[in-house]
Amino acid sequence: MDLNADLGEGLGVWRLGDDAALLDLVTSANVACGFHAGDAVTMRRVCAGAAERGVMVGAQVSYRDLVGFGRRHIAYEFAELRDEVIYQLGALDGFCRVAGTRVRYLKPHGALYHAVTYDESQAAAVVAAVAEYDDQLALLCPSGSVLSQLANGAGLRAVSEGFADRGYQPNGRLVPRGAPNALVADPEQMAQQALRMATEQAVVAVDGTVIPCPVQSICLHGDTPGAVRCAELIRAVLVDAGIPLAPFTGRGGRA
Amino acid sequence: MDLNADLGEGLGVWRLGDDAALLDLVTSANVACGFHAGDAVTMRRVCAGAAERGVMVGAQVSYRDLVGFGRRHIAYEFAELRDEVIYQLGALDGFCRVAGTRVRYLKPHGALYHAVTYDESQAAAVVAAVAEYDDQLALLCPSGSVLSQLANGAGLRAVSEGFADRGYQPNGRLVPRGAPNALVADPEQMAQQALRMATEQAVVAVDGTVIPCPVQSICLHGDTPGAVRCAELIRAVLVDAGIPLAPFTGRGGRA
Amino acid sequence: MDLNADLGEGLGVWRLGDDAALLDLVTSANVACGFHAGDAVTMRRVCAGAAERGVMVGAQVSYRDLVGFGRRHIAYEFAELRDEVIYQLGALDGFCRVAGTRVRYLKPHGALYHAVTYDESQAAAVVAAVAEYDDQLALLCPSGSVLSQLANGAGLRAVSEGFADRGYQPNGRLVPRGAPNALVADPEQMAQQALRMATEQAVVAVDGTVIPCPVQSICLHGDTPGAVRCAELIRAVLVDAGIPLAPFTGRGGRA
Amino acid sequence: MDLNADLGEGLGVWRLGDDAALLDLVTSANVACGFHAGDAVTMRRVCAGAAERGVMVGAQVSYRDLVGFGRRHIAYEFAELRDEVIYQLGALDGFCRVAGTRVRYLKPHGALYHAVTYDESQAAAVVAAVAEYDDQLALLCPSGSVLSQLANGAGLRAVSEGFADRGYQPNGRLVPRGAPNALVADPEQMAQQALRMATEQAVVAVDGTVIPCPVQSICLHGDTPGAVRCAELIRAVLVDAGIPLAPFTGRGGRA
Repeated sequence: MDLNADLGEGLGVWRLGDDAALLDLVTSANVACGFHAGDAVTMRRVCAGAAERGVMVGAQVSYRDLVGFGRRHIAYEFAELRDEVIYQLGALDGFCRVAGTRVRYLKPHGALYHAVTYDESQAAAVVAAVAEYDDQLALLCPSGSVLSQLANGAGLRAVSEGFADRGYQPNGRLVPRGAPNALVADPEQMAQQALRMATEQAVVAVDGTVIPCPVQSICLHGDTPGAVRCAELIRAVLVDAGIPLAPFTGRGGRA
Repeated sequence: MDLNADLGEGLGVWRLGDDAALLDLVTSANVACGFHAGDAVTMRRVCAGAAERGVMVGAQVSYRDLVGFGRRHIAYEFAELRDEVIYQLGALDGFCRVAGTRVRYLKPHGALYHAVTYDESQAAAVVAAVAEYDDQLALLCPSGSVLSQLANGAGLRAVSEGFADRGYQPNGRLVPRGAPNALVADPEQMAQQALRMATEQAVVAVDGTVIPCPVQSICLHGDTPGAVRCAELIRAVLVDAGIPLAPFTGRGGRA
Repeated sequence: MDLNADLGEGLGVWRLGDDAALLDLVTSANVACGFHAGDAVTMRRVCAGAAERGVMVGAQVSYRDLVGFGRRHIAYEFAELRDEVIYQLGALDGFCRVAGTRVRYLKPHGALYHAVTYDESQAAAVVAAVAEYDDQLALLCPSGSVLSQLANGAGLRAVSEGFADRGYQPNGRLVPRGAPNALVADPEQMAQQALRMATEQAVVAVDGTVIPCPVQSICLHGDTPGAVRCAELIRAVLVDAGIPLAPFTGRGGRA
Repeated sequence: MDLNADLGEGLGVWRLGDDAALLDLVTSANVACGFHAGDAVTMRRVCAGAAERGVMVGAQVSYRDLVGFGRRHIAYEFAELRDEVIYQLGALDGFCRVAGTRVRYLKPHGALYHAVTYDESQAAAVVAAVAEYDDQLALLCPSGSVLSQLANGAGLRAVSEGFADRGYQPNGRLVPRGAPNALVADPEQMAQQALRMATEQAVVAVDGTVIPCPVQSICLHGDTPGAVRCAELIRAVLVDAGIPLAPFTGRGGRA
């Protein structure tokens, strides 16, 4: 099982999340590329830290919106989005190169992550960016999303992720934020949800039914002290259960 | 002889210079990377156009200053500048990759171009960025600059450029802008200055003496209709004189 | 009749439109406030030029999107948009104050102009910004828009504008860009359309019927040489017909 | 005695300092205006909070440099800096207006604060901005700076500030950061330094001599939990000593 987290989401003097703590917990690092967060010095540091630890680096690409942290939907044209994704992939790859590694995958951030679940044009733009830039890159995305469908259709590898701290509906979708049971608050319950995903490829939905949840990666959060402790617990429970933790591998066995 | 020009210096709806005309005249394109000018769609288009024509692509790196067009000196710390240069190199390389080519050299823009002639820390930051990112990249820079000295000292290739439209002092330096004879206004005189650089590696200084001018590239300007016509004339005069026009080659004979 | 145009839409070295020519033609200037275009030096110059000529200044407010020129819809939250509009109003008012005048009205730009025709939340945010900042400001907006309805409901003054160079549907709406007859190409026809708006408060729709078009301002364009000549012709035709050209006046008779 | 602090220095999701705690301690708030920090929603909130508490609002103006937090010197031209200062003054005044107050003073931030101590052109640009925008605004600046001299020469009011947590040289200047005794680490010593400034207009220099220190405001810091506690202690010691705490008043007795 792969464990991923968002990293490098500070900007200049501003910090967000505990990059150092998370780098010791994850197997894959979604590194911000300067569009919603992340400056060059931070990108370099996170890529170097990931390379030292054997953590796989992915590009956490976003709309261009620092003040909104990439959380506001922007109606990009196809070519604009494709090219801004390529720009971000290239920029992050520069720091990976310096650190002796490469960008191995892409994960959309924020409002773009949400948009590619349903928006054909934006999902196609992300797929085109990956196909043109490096068709060996994987796309880490919501399971069942338009993005994963288009990626597969283009011969790219879509990797699904699950959440230990979110409630699932019986149809396999996340309970929307704000609705009851959207969040799993109890750390033990989070760890058990992660364990079931890893061992049974399943999750207990909010109605109590056990549903399939075929994920190759579990997303950890780390922007609060409590979140880091939850992430540590999740990792510990998986390790104790003998689950091998390693980056999902790309088509060519890279990582 | 190599002919270089600044390209891709628009931003979104704003245009600057005639990229299409210049791509047909130059052998090397200094492509803006988004910090003083240049958006992702423009970067892609210029890289593609350069690749189609066999024009070599270089990264025109800058301070982060869109409103000031990179023309204001900024007192960057070493690591900040090194990493922002790597960011720009990587981003542009992404579009080169998509276009089937690679970034082959770097040229500092605006106030950074000026700063690296004398500022040890900023010049060293640019050299460190190139050394870490790809030590096969050349640095296109003012002859006799601190940048070229540090680049050579680090085992990198510094390429000097000359100007057909600027006056030279007897000591080989440019006449500062604003001073008398800073600019060569007559197109025929520009073309003759370029021709002498190409054939004799020399230039007639403003006091009439002929001084050495060992340049491997001549910088063309194209941000006004008149400038494009001058660039066309310079190229035509060189071609008529049988000067082979080709990108300066890197250490490994690439281009 | 008031004639308005978008002004100050350059950024740093980049120019767009002929501010000087338009300032001599309009009675109201929609000045860009730095979010889709416009830097401080330009804002100052345009406000000063407007004040000298007795041209009324309005804030052309936008989403924060320089690279996209404010043309991409952004899903702002209510408070974010309200406060970014206040920020722009205040910034422009600073230059008006220096020039001895004041911001008299607001006009949304680009994708925001389109959004406030139908989006209740975004239109309400613009109305809230005006109501809080200065309830004597007028809102220049599409006739029949949600923005004009909400503005009127809040006791603010909504001013409708017409277009000399756009086709109108029989229901009074503009023919969408891209559809046949979206644009009026013939300068004489533009001038006649403006004249009819000014004298009869009517327009000939694309099906030939004459429909009411109760506008208090006509929008001129000036971003191409041809556009400036059309604007000159429109103004000349109105002057020849004895139409008094003057800024629409606010509630308190200001201007 | 006035107590001032830098406030509103977050950006979007990023936080810096404890605005709420400091608003309860200061009499003057230096509010970031969006160039080195500060977004519209934050500016509004801080201005509203200041107005509710009778805290005077000042514009903490900066170079345009979010990633560098305004800490890098930028070689602005006179007109560029003057106009960007006016832009910031106007933008902040918009939120003050909404909150029922006005901007009462200006304080330069970061590298600009340092530059105006010695740079005639940049200091003159700040003075010109204030003189043009509102000549009743005070300038909060280092004592003995070029800025305070030029401000006084222009008939503006320069207000000097002192630091409870910095060491002073016998000549009245601050010990440069990085040198021994640059910082006062002991909270009690800070409070005593502030008290002496308030009661004797003097400070004990690092060589033990007592030197004049005629300041009208003391700058508090609040970007760490420890800093907030120090600020609380300083305020408490001043209150206990019967020092009236109130905003420095402008020429017209405003505040």
